[in-house]
Amino acid sequence: MSLVLDPAAQDLLFREARTANSFTDEPVTDEQVQAIYDLVKFGPTAFNLSSLRITLVRSPEARERLVQHMAEGNQPKTASAPLVAILSADNEFHEELPALFPHFPQAKDVFFSERPAREGAAHLNAALQAAYFIIGVRAAGLAAGPMTGFDAAAVQKEFLDGDHTPLMVVNIGKPAENAWFPRSPRLEIDQVVETV
Amino acid sequence: MSLVLDPAAQDLLFREARTANSFTDEPVTDEQVQAIYDLVKFGPTAFNLSSLRITLVRSPEARERLVQHMAEGNQPKTASAPLVAILSADNEFHEELPALFPHFPQAKDVFFSERPAREGAAHLNAALQAAYFIIGVRAAGLAAGPMTGFDAAAVQKEFLDGDHTPLMVVNIGKPAENAWFPRSPRLEIDQVVETV
Repeated sequence: MSLVLDPAAQDLLFREARTANSFTDEPVTDEQVQAIYDLVKFGPTAFNLSSLRITLVRSPEARERLVQHMAEGNQPKTASAPLVAILSADNEFHEELPALFPHFPQAKDVFFSERPAREGAAHLNAALQAAYFIIGVRAAGLAAGPMTGFDAAAVQKEFLDGDHTPLMVVNIGKPAENAWFPRSPRLEIDQVVETV
Repeated sequence: MSLVLDPAAQDLLFREARTANSFTDEPVTDEQVQAIYDLVKFGPTAFNLSSLRITLVRSPEARERLVQHMAEGNQPKTASAPLVAILSADNEFHEELPALFPHFPQAKDVFFSERPAREGAAHLNAALQAAYFIIGVRAAGLAAGPMTGFDAAAVQKEFLDGDHTPLMVVNIGKPAENAWFPRSPRLEIDQVVETV
């Protein structure tokens, strides 16, 4: 009642959308990834710092390398999803900051000259963008299966470098039948929200 | 073209939505907060762990206490927004986990018995939920003004406790005229996405 977003969109993005554990064989195209990115790139980050990086695992050889670093329970779905993406935080995002935040290009040096501050900001803002990405996958009529159960150090070593911290691996595709568990309960608002 | 989400919803949530720096006087009601929560609570988290907590700063006295801990550039908007919310991560979320993840209630002990592991999971998943919350604010036809420029230790001490880590403060309301800067540029997809 208090929302202006169309109820069908509410269902698509939140209410009926679910974390998929199995997928059909229908491929996820680069055009779909482009459309998702072109939408979710507008989600807000601090200083527009845009620290999320996305590694699409498309070759069978790369897929195999990734699967072996996933937790055992995540291996079958990572092996079979139409597309798998590694989402990471770029700890050297500040190099792009003068272009990304043109009304205060000094932000790069004023706030982000120290690596620990950069890592914190990179991680938090990439996590926000990871959520926007999940929403974007759903906006494309696809299901996302985000996973944090993997050997992060091994995935970083295999696919990234010391400047990129993996946050999650996301399976993407059309959900198969019975792709999910029953919906788990959510916290009541009074367990989450307090007023002062 | 590749998205199934209605273009008006794309605009509302991402393309036309902006981070507001000034607001009208129109109040944000508890009913609106309830509607936002009832939508975004369905956004996915690892193990459904749901670590986000929200402190609505409604009393003038609490508002005053918060404003003094904001970075100087954030003080006027924090003082004048119709509603201000402190978003934090609950590092003791695991106490709710047997209820939240009923098909594997042992997760509480198997994965989250150690505080450092809990803090990492609490932070990442609360950040995902913070992004869902921002999207939900927009779904209610309101503008969000998320801010990370504040004294986190002081905000934690004033409003939270040692088990809750503040992630951001969000101004919420109807945007005033000229509520935002010109849209800053985004990274091109080939600066963000690589394929292996």
